[in-house]
Amino acid sequence: MTEPTAELLETFENPNEGRNYVIETVCPEFTSVCPKTGQPDFGKITITYIADEVCYELKSLKLYLQQYRNHGAFYESVTNKILDDLVAVTQPRMMEIRAEFTPRGGIKTSVIAHYPDDLFDEE
Amino acid sequence: MTEPTAELLETFENPNEGRNYVIETVCPEFTSVCPKTGQPDFGKITITYIADEVCYELKSLKLYLQQYRNHGAFYESVTNKILDDLVAVTQPRMMEIRAEFTPRGGIKTSVIAHYPDDLFDEE
Amino acid sequence: MTEPTAELLETFENPNEGRNYVIETVCPEFTSVCPKTGQPDFGKITITYIADEVCYELKSLKLYLQQYRNHGAFYESVTNKILDDLVAVTQPRMMEIRAEFTPRGGIKTSVIAHYPDDLFDEE
Amino acid sequence: MTEPTAELLETFENPNEGRNYVIETVCPEFTSVCPKTGQPDFGKITITYIADEVCYELKSLKLYLQQYRNHGAFYESVTNKILDDLVAVTQPRMMEIRAEFTPRGGIKTSVIAHYPDDLFDEE
Amino acid sequence: MTEPTAELLETFENPNEGRNYVIETVCPEFTSVCPKTGQPDFGKITITYIADEVCYELKSLKLYLQQYRNHGAFYESVTNKILDDLVAVTQPRMMEIRAEFTPRGGIKTSVIAHYPDDLFDEE
Amino acid sequence: MTEPTAELLETFENPNEGRNYVIETVCPEFTSVCPKTGQPDFGKITITYIADEVCYELKSLKLYLQQYRNHGAFYESVTNKILDDLVAVTQPRMMEIRAEFTPRGGIKTSVIAHYPDDLFDEE
Amino acid sequence: MTEPTAELLETFENPNEGRNYVIETVCPEFTSVCPKTGQPDFGKITITYIADEVCYELKSLKLYLQQYRNHGAFYESVTNKILDDLVAVTQPRMMEIRAEFTPRGGIKTSVIAHYPDDLFDEE
Amino acid sequence: MTEPTAELLETFENPNEGRNYVIETVCPEFTSVCPKTGQPDFGKITITYIADEVCYELKSLKLYLQQYRNHGAFYESVTNKILDDLVAVTQPRMMEIRAEFTPRGGIKTSVIAHYPDDLFDEE
Amino acid sequence: MTEPTAELLETFENPNEGRNYVIETVCPEFTSVCPKTGQPDFGKITITYIADEVCYELKSLKLYLQQYRNHGAFYESVTNKILDDLVAVTQPRMMEIRAEFTPRGGIKTSVIAHYPDDLFDEE
Amino acid sequence: MTEPTAELLETFENPNEGRNYVIETVCPEFTSVCPKTGQPDFGKITITYIADEVCYELKSLKLYLQQYRNHGAFYESVTNKILDDLVAVTQPRMMEIRAEFTPRGGIKTSVIAHYPDDLFDEE
Repeated sequence: MTEPTAELLETFENPNEGRNYVIETVCPEFTSVCPKTGQPDFGKITITYIADEVCYELKSLKLYLQQYRNHGAFYESVTNKILDDLVAVTQPRMMEIRAEFTPRGGIKTSVIAHYPDDLFDEE
Repeated sequence: MTEPTAELLETFENPNEGRNYVIETVCPEFTSVCPKTGQPDFGKITITYIADEVCYELKSLKLYLQQYRNHGAFYESVTNKILDDLVAVTQPRMMEIRAEFTPRGGIKTSVIAHYPDDLFDEE
Repeated sequence: MTEPTAELLETFENPNEGRNYVIETVCPEFTSVCPKTGQPDFGKITITYIADEVCYELKSLKLYLQQYRNHGAFYESVTNKILDDLVAVTQPRMMEIRAEFTPRGGIKTSVIAHYPDDLFDEE
Repeated sequence: MTEPTAELLETFENPNEGRNYVIETVCPEFTSVCPKTGQPDFGKITITYIADEVCYELKSLKLYLQQYRNHGAFYESVTNKILDDLVAVTQPRMMEIRAEFTPRGGIKTSVIAHYPDDLFDEE
Repeated sequence: MTEPTAELLETFENPNEGRNYVIETVCPEFTSVCPKTGQPDFGKITITYIADEVCYELKSLKLYLQQYRNHGAFYESVTNKILDDLVAVTQPRMMEIRAEFTPRGGIKTSVIAHYPDDLFDEE
Repeated sequence: MTEPTAELLETFENPNEGRNYVIETVCPEFTSVCPKTGQPDFGKITITYIADEVCYELKSLKLYLQQYRNHGAFYESVTNKILDDLVAVTQPRMMEIRAEFTPRGGIKTSVIAHYPDDLFDEE
Repeated sequence: MTEPTAELLETFENPNEGRNYVIETVCPEFTSVCPKTGQPDFGKITITYIADEVCYELKSLKLYLQQYRNHGAFYESVTNKILDDLVAVTQPRMMEIRAEFTPRGGIKTSVIAHYPDDLFDEE
Repeated sequence: MTEPTAELLETFENPNEGRNYVIETVCPEFTSVCPKTGQPDFGKITITYIADEVCYELKSLKLYLQQYRNHGAFYESVTNKILDDLVAVTQPRMMEIRAEFTPRGGIKTSVIAHYPDDLFDEE
Repeated sequence: MTEPTAELLETFENPNEGRNYVIETVCPEFTSVCPKTGQPDFGKITITYIADEVCYELKSLKLYLQQYRNHGAFYESVTNKILDDLVAVTQPRMMEIRAEFTPRGGIKTSVIAHYPDDLFDEE
Repeated sequence: MTEPTAELLETFENPNEGRNYVIETVCPEFTSVCPKTGQPDFGKITITYIADEVCYELKSLKLYLQQYRNHGAFYESVTNKILDDLVAVTQPRMMEIRAEFTPRGGIKTSVIAHYPDDLFDEE
C-alpha cells in the first residue's frame, strides 16, 4: 500500500486574494485503517481556512482523502498529515483541522490541529 | 451564456441613514452550475449588512441571484462576486456573505466573506 | 487485588512534536468499586491534552482504565491518580481530567483536575 | 425535633492536597419543612468546592442532608447553614452552595452562597 | 359575589348548519379562586365542538370565562359548569372541555368532560 | 366593501384526471377583519383535496384569499365560505379546509370543515 | 410510626355525577422510606380516575400522601395501598395509579395499578 | 426548450426479482420553472417503489430530473408526469411520488400520486 | 469464575396478588465480559412484569445482576438466562427482558425476550 | 477483487431455541464502492431477526460486512445479497434488512428487504 500523497491535491487561483474570507469544508465520510489491528476506522474531518494565493479544489480533496481508505495510521498522525499536506499545497493564511473519530472499544477520540501553531499565544 | 451582472440590482434611499441598523436577507434557493462537471449546485446565501445611503431592493436581488442559475463558477468566486457586486451598488457600512452549499461527493462546503475585510484585525 | 499500574500505558512518538494540537478522549464506560460498600460505581472520563514528546496509545489506555474495574477507591483519588499516571507517562504540555459519576443514594458527583495546576492563576 | 448537626459529616484526607481541583456534588432529592405552614419543601442542592486538607465523605453528606427532612427552616437559613457546616468541617479553599427549590404558590426560589464571601470583589 | 352566569354568552347563527365541522377554542389565561384557601388558581381551558344551530361568539366567551376570576369553586365543578353552560346555550352536536390547572402545593390536576357523555361507549 | 367572490378563482384542466392523487396547499398568511371590533385577524389556511376534472390555479387562489383582507366575517363563516367556493369552482372528489387563527384576547380558535360532510360516518 | 390512614382523605360530592368525566392528578414530590435500609425514597405519583358519587379533595390528598414521608414500605405495596385507599374512599368508576421512583443503586422502578383490574381483558 | 423525456432513464435488472422489497429515493434538489411567471420553483421529490423486473439507475434518474430545471409546468402535471415516466420505464409492482414545493407568494403546495391508483380502496 | 446463580434472588410476597399490575425495572449499569475477547461489555436491562405470588426484591436483583460483572457470555444467552432465572424464581403472569448493549467494533446489538413466548401469536 | 462470501459468517447455537425472541443489530459504518464510478458509498445497515437453530456471531458479521469495503455493487443487490447470505447461514424464523445510504449527487436512497417475503400479505 502506498502512502497518501499530496500530489493528488489540485488548487485553483484564489478568486479574491485581496480579501481575508473563510472557507469551511466538512467531510463526514472519512475512513482509514488502524495500524495495530488492521480494522477500519471512521470519522468526520472539518477543515476551516483562509486562503492566500490558492484554494484547494474540492474533487481533488475528495480523492486525496480517499487515499486513507486502506491506509494504516494513528489518528494523531492522520490529522497532522492532512494539515501538513493542505498547508504545503495551499500555503493558507490560517487553517484548522478538526477530526472526530467514532468510538472504538468504548473510547471516542478527537484531534484538533491549527496552522500557524498559535494555541498558547492565543489563549 | 452571459456573465451575471450587477446592473440588475436596484436600490432605494436608506430611510434611516442616521442610524446603524442591520438588515439580514436569507436566500435558501440559490443554484448555480459546477464549472468542472456541468452539474447543478444548490446552496443557501445569507446576506447581513448595515446600509449607508441606499438599500438594495429585494425583487431586484432575486433577479440578480437568478442569473447564477445556469452560470458556471466555483463556490469561492460566486461568494466573493456577490459580495463585490452588492458592495459596489450599495456602498454599505459593513456586509457579510455566508454561502452554505449542499454536499457533493459526501463533502459540504461553506464560504464566508466580509466587507470591509477586517477578519485579522477583528480577532 | 493489585493496584492499577501506569505500566500498562504505552506511548508512541508524537508525530507532530513541533506543533501544539489538542487530543480529546472520552471514555463513557468507566467502572470502579466503592471502597466503603464494595458496590460498583460507574462514570464517564474525559481526557483533554496537548502532547509533548509522546502520545498515549488508545488500546493501552483502555486496558489501563479497565484495571479500575475491580479496584476500590474514592472518586477524588481515582480522578487524581488517572491524571498523575497519564502525566507521568506522557509528560504533556497540559492535561485535564473530567470525571462524571452516575448517582449513588440520589447524589451525583463530578471531579475535575488540571495539569499544570493553574486554577487560581487562571481565574 | 433536634437541630441538624454537622457532627454527622465525615471527612477523609484529600488524596491530592498539592493540587487545586474541583469537586461538584448534586443532590436533587433535598427536602425540608416550611417553618410557617409545616408543609414539606423540595429542592436541589449543588455543592462546588476545592478541598484543602480534607474532602467530605459522600454517604455522610447524604445522612447530614437527610437531617433536614423533618426540620423546619426558611430557604435562606437552610442554604447558609449547609455552607457554614460544610466549611466548618472541611475548611475548603473555596465552596459554593446553590439551592433551587420547587415552586410554592406559583413562585420558585433559589439561594446561592459563596465561601469566602468575595461576591462583590469577584464580579 | 354573584355566581358566573351563562347569560353573558352570546351566539350567532351557525353559518353552515348543514355541515358537521369542528371548532376548537383554547383559553390559556383562565383564572379562578380556590374555595378553601381563597388563593387564585390558573389554568388552560380547551373547548372542542361541532355546532348545531348556533355558535358561541368569542368575545362573549371571554367575558363569560372572566366571571370566574373572583369566583371560588373546585376544579371539577368549574369544568363541568363550563360544559353545562356552553351546552345549554349552544346545544352542540358534540363538545369536550379539557381544563389543565397549574400546580398547587406541588400537585397538578386536569379535568376532561364530554357531551354527550359517551366515554364508556366510545372506548 | 364588496363580498369576496369565487369569480376570481381560475382553474386548469386536471392533468391526470384518471388518477386519484392528493394536492395540499398551505396559506400561512391569511388575514380578515373581525366583524364586531373591526380589528384584523390572522390565520393559516390548509386546503387538502383530490381534484376531479379541474384544479384551482395557485395565483388565482392567492388573489381569492386576499379578498378577505378588508372583509368582516366570523371565523366559522370564513372557513365554510372558502370550502363552499372552492367546491363550487373545482367540484373535487374530496376537500378539507383547516383554518387556525392566531390568539385574540388570549383565546385561540381553529375551524375544520370537510366535503363531502362525512365526519360522523368516518369516525 | 403509625400506618398511613385513609381517614385523612376527604371527599366532596361529585358536582356532575350524571356524567363520566376524567380527573388526572400528578404529585411529583412523593417521598417514603425504604423498609430495608431506612433510607428515603422519592417518586412521582399520577392518579387518573372517573368519579362516581364523590371526588377526593386535593388538599386532603396532599396530607394523605405526606403520611408516607416517614413510612417504610416497598414500592409495590405503596402503590397498591394508595389505589386501595383511594378506591375505598371514593368508589370511582375507574382509577389508575402510576408510581415512578427515582433510581436507587443504579436501578429505577415504576409500578402501575388499575381499578377495576381489567389488564388482561383490556389487551 | 424541449420537453423532459423518459428516454434518459436507464434501468438495470432487478437483482432480486423473486422478492418484494422496497426502494425509497429522496431528491431534495428538484427545480423547475413556473409556466405563468417564468420564475424558478424548488421542491423535494420522494419516490417509493417495489420493483418488478427492473430498477431505475440513480445517475440516470438524476439526469432525468435535471431536465425539469428550465422546463415550465404546473406542480400537478410535473408530479404526475414523473410518476407516468417512471412507471412506463420500470413497470413497478407499486410506486408513490410525493412532491413538496417551497412557498410561492406565501402559499406552499404538495402533490402525492400513487400507482396503481388505489387511494379510495386503500383508505 | 462461578456461573451467575438465581439463588441470590430474593422475593417477597406480592402485596396485591389479587390484582394484575405492572412493575418496570430499568438497570442502565449492566456490565459483563465478552466470552471471545475477555473485554468488558456494557448495556441497559429493562424488565417489565406482572407478578403472581411473589415480586423480586430490588437489592437482591442488583446483586444478582452484578454477578455478570466478570462473567463471560454472549448477549443472547445473557438475556435469555436473566429471563429464565427471573421467571423461575418469581413465576410471573408475564415478563419481558429488553437488553440494549453499547456498540462494539462499530456494531450495536439489542435482544428482546418474552415470557410466555407469544411473539408469533400476538402479531 | 473477490466477491464477498458468506463463508466468513460464523454462527453459534441459539441458546434459547425454544423461545421466539428478537435480535436487532445496527451497523452505522457500512461502506462499499459504486460499480459505475468506483467512488466509495457509505450507509447504515439494520438487521432484525428471530433466530431458529443458530445466531450469527457479531465479530464474524463485522468481518463479513467489511468485505464490501472495496466491493462494487448497486445498493439493491448489496441489500438483497446481505439478506440472502444471512438467511442461508442462519435459517432464521424471520429477518429484515434495512439499508440507508448517504446522499450521492443530491439523491438519498434506502432499500428494505424481508424474509420471508410477506410484504403484500402483511399489508
